[in-house]
Amino acid sequence: MELIREGDTVLVYIDEKRKFPIVVRRGGILGTDKGFIRHDEIIGKPYGSTLTTSMGVKALLFKPLRQDYIPALKRITQIIHPKDAALMIYLSGVGPGSRVGEAGVGSGALTIAIASIIGDNGVLYGYDISEKAIETTMQNLEKAGLKHRVVLALRDVREGVDVDNLDAFFLDIPDPWNALSSVSKSLKNSGVLLVYVPTINQVEKTVVAMRQSGVFGDIHVYELLLREMSVEPGAVRPRSKMIGHTGYVIFARKLASSDSP
Amino acid sequence: MELIREGDTVLVYIDEKRKFPIVVRRGGILGTDKGFIRHDEIIGKPYGSTLTTSMGVKALLFKPLRQDYIPALKRITQIIHPKDAALMIYLSGVGPGSRVGEAGVGSGALTIAIASIIGDNGVLYGYDISEKAIETTMQNLEKAGLKHRVVLALRDVREGVDVDNLDAFFLDIPDPWNALSSVSKSLKNSGVLLVYVPTINQVEKTVVAMRQSGVFGDIHVYELLLREMSVEPGAVRPRSKMIGHTGYVIFARKLASSDSP
Amino acid sequence: MELIREGDTVLVYIDEKRKFPIVVRRGGILGTDKGFIRHDEIIGKPYGSTLTTSMGVKALLFKPLRQDYIPALKRITQIIHPKDAALMIYLSGVGPGSRVGEAGVGSGALTIAIASIIGDNGVLYGYDISEKAIETTMQNLEKAGLKHRVVLALRDVREGVDVDNLDAFFLDIPDPWNALSSVSKSLKNSGVLLVYVPTINQVEKTVVAMRQSGVFGDIHVYELLLREMSVEPGAVRPRSKMIGHTGYVIFARKLASSDSP
Amino acid sequence: MELIREGDTVLVYIDEKRKFPIVVRRGGILGTDKGFIRHDEIIGKPYGSTLTTSMGVKALLFKPLRQDYIPALKRITQIIHPKDAALMIYLSGVGPGSRVGEAGVGSGALTIAIASIIGDNGVLYGYDISEKAIETTMQNLEKAGLKHRVVLALRDVREGVDVDNLDAFFLDIPDPWNALSSVSKSLKNSGVLLVYVPTINQVEKTVVAMRQSGVFGDIHVYELLLREMSVEPGAVRPRSKMIGHTGYVIFARKLASSDSP
Repeated sequence: MELIREGDTVLVYIDEKRKFPIVVRRGGILGTDKGFIRHDEIIGKPYGSTLTTSMGVKALLFKPLRQDYIPALKRITQIIHPKDAALMIYLSGVGPGSRVGEAGVGSGALTIAIASIIGDNGVLYGYDISEKAIETTMQNLEKAGLKHRVVLALRDVREGVDVDNLDAFFLDIPDPWNALSSVSKSLKNSGVLLVYVPTINQVEKTVVAMRQSGVFGDIHVYELLLREMSVEPGAVRPRSKMIGHTGYVIFARKLASSDSP
Repeated sequence: MELIREGDTVLVYIDEKRKFPIVVRRGGILGTDKGFIRHDEIIGKPYGSTLTTSMGVKALLFKPLRQDYIPALKRITQIIHPKDAALMIYLSGVGPGSRVGEAGVGSGALTIAIASIIGDNGVLYGYDISEKAIETTMQNLEKAGLKHRVVLALRDVREGVDVDNLDAFFLDIPDPWNALSSVSKSLKNSGVLLVYVPTINQVEKTVVAMRQSGVFGDIHVYELLLREMSVEPGAVRPRSKMIGHTGYVIFARKLASSDSP
Repeated sequence: MELIREGDTVLVYIDEKRKFPIVVRRGGILGTDKGFIRHDEIIGKPYGSTLTTSMGVKALLFKPLRQDYIPALKRITQIIHPKDAALMIYLSGVGPGSRVGEAGVGSGALTIAIASIIGDNGVLYGYDISEKAIETTMQNLEKAGLKHRVVLALRDVREGVDVDNLDAFFLDIPDPWNALSSVSKSLKNSGVLLVYVPTINQVEKTVVAMRQSGVFGDIHVYELLLREMSVEPGAVRPRSKMIGHTGYVIFARKLASSDSP
Repeated sequence: MELIREGDTVLVYIDEKRKFPIVVRRGGILGTDKGFIRHDEIIGKPYGSTLTTSMGVKALLFKPLRQDYIPALKRITQIIHPKDAALMIYLSGVGPGSRVGEAGVGSGALTIAIASIIGDNGVLYGYDISEKAIETTMQNLEKAGLKHRVVLALRDVREGVDVDNLDAFFLDIPDPWNALSSVSKSLKNSGVLLVYVPTINQVEKTVVAMRQSGVFGDIHVYELLLREMSVEPGAVRPRSKMIGHTGYVIFARKLASSDSP
């Protein structure tokens, strides 16, 4: 049985709105509006254990999953919703050993999710035009222990990407249609491009530009609606609160250019 | 530039309903209702290339992604929809090196998706009560080149699972509430259980049983609706065809049992 | 052109969250957190006019529609959402001259909507087991000028309904399956029953009871999801806020009992 | 108890896909792929009765509701889906005695629904640019017994509407932005405009034009998703088939023009 040690990252789970991923240190204290917890009480307990806060509220100690880091990220930008990140990563075909590009990295939420999938033999090239974004992503990757898998660069991908032969590229910028030329050059033939945009106008411009470019095929645009169910015995129903819209996911594969051998 | 060689698996893409993952063999012929293609024409072309069938219809040659195998799987059961598989895998936290359980494997669609993510250092234990399911999954894994990462067993997981210390378990059986005890023993503390069920009655029974068991926490039930957008310049709209329902995804984490040290 | 007179009901519209249906009186003042408006400024203006509050905020003067009364109703219960009321009324076939039943009336929101459709030759019999509900509905009908079309009674419809030959019945009680026998007796042959319930368990019990009763046919269960679009030029998207669930609408028609001539 | 007489319109309901509204005539025969029914067997039966076809299949005899006419309409155009018609009519505030405009009438499905609500004291002015549409709508109104409430005219409403003082206008044409000026003149101050368009580009153009016109306020754009539930005891779930998209509903109210007294 795996016991929690000093230096481990632990998710302290009180309820849906109170999930705290912390690095456990002797003498440390986690303060919450439901009472505090001494780190010393956490050390030596098995993962999955229960304890109570100073106010007598139950807290669970979980080993954090990649999505647990996201709510706690230092944020400077809007973050791609997990339902959309899940679909994008799945459709990208990215897995252990993949070579991947991403722009812009924003606060690094998707960066963390991709880095956790590619393993130590994969590499993720992350770009942004904001120095602050690069720094924040770096810090967030460090907390998640994934920094060594990612190469970050301050670069406007609309002006070119400095790597090639990528398996997949994730594009989350306001005008993806202006980056299609650079991104297509960075991708392997048959490589996958995933674009995330919030408005329908961006969808239209991007898809039209993809078709005109002649270098993308198998183009699809998806939107996901996520409903959470409320389960009380004898009274099951979808929750009355729901996010109405996050963004659209565009999928495309790179075609070999016509002048290929 | 990567050229297609004999023995490679290639996705021949004609349109949305005509996607054929084939293993390329000298002298081979792919016959479709839009004409045939000689494998010899494919060999030596770069991935992402275009060619035409005997009826003059355009076909694209892609390197298959994991989701490309699914439509071509030999099937004996209903398959978990990619949108749901994507969410389940994402939420599971599974990645390179993970130790994972799955029951029932059915035709192996989710098995392939998980196996592709865990890398060569991970292991997936797949169970089913049908000999036919085990065989079919084995064949489908072989085609996808992922057999070495999966241990398949003919076993009713409601009566026990023969491994432990798993990071995550995927449960797709008609009565998941009867397997909670076995599955919880196979999971690490803080490990993740993902359940997939088509009806709301199954959701209710499973969640109630999870709560009563006392060994699962952070329980959530999700449903995803996927809309695909039709993009014609000046006429963008959601597609009029849509799948109305596939199934519900239940997420839970294993708690340390109270008699733990 | 129709000018606003003393005694008229006017909808003062400031924004989505500030819509006030008021009866205009000389000397009256409407106070809001965006400033006040003297009723004297309103009298004599055409409907559809614009004026400004004491704080300089623009306000529109509309002739209220039936749905405008709903947000301003004196409320003692949850109200059926307009999207659902719209579907129920449409499917009911109710129109000018219809004879209609409703239980429970709650705060009278649906009562107002039905009463406004049946005209002066129609009649609506409204029931509730709460005296407070009957009083509140009476007051709300009076404000909407529709009291003369409705007969309200303090009665538990599960124990019987005191009218018959109804064209349609609207049932919004926690255990509709217990009222099916009474309600079916009050309906004309081929008359329509509309049931509104928030949970899936209630749906199941009601539909099963309808089938077993043998006196209802053409049974359907619907759920509506309403998305509102945000339209900024060049940035159109669904709104990010959305109601995830309100309730299910069950439709059925009464069959002639087998012992009919 | 109301018995079916010669000349009555009856909905013969076999199943979801076999609903036939017929006018009953002595000696008549209704032929279906599930067997035939002699009209003589129908005459004299109460509404809501059951009989069997020549092939022994059960059929129910219902009094038709307005939505029952729609599937049987002679059609020359796409028809507004009942869920959308329901919302539009509800939001319009139209009821007994209303003066209403509609363009284009198409096959008359919405025309029938509105005409059934406005009663004998209301009037509906229906326009279309197609002679065929006017004729078809006329025939469909006649079958539904509602012809006397509707004035149909062959007219392009973008070039003007020949009536005024309308309570509401329903606009279902490809370029509604070109009809806003005419339609606003035909509406009472504070009157309601409902527009139905299938694409998001039409939504954007219409809403932008409404705002620029300065004569419309309280503008909203809605989309409805309808799910039907499948209820088997112990196995309740949304149906797997669903319509993914029909159209968008735009709501607006007419403002008094600034040069009003």
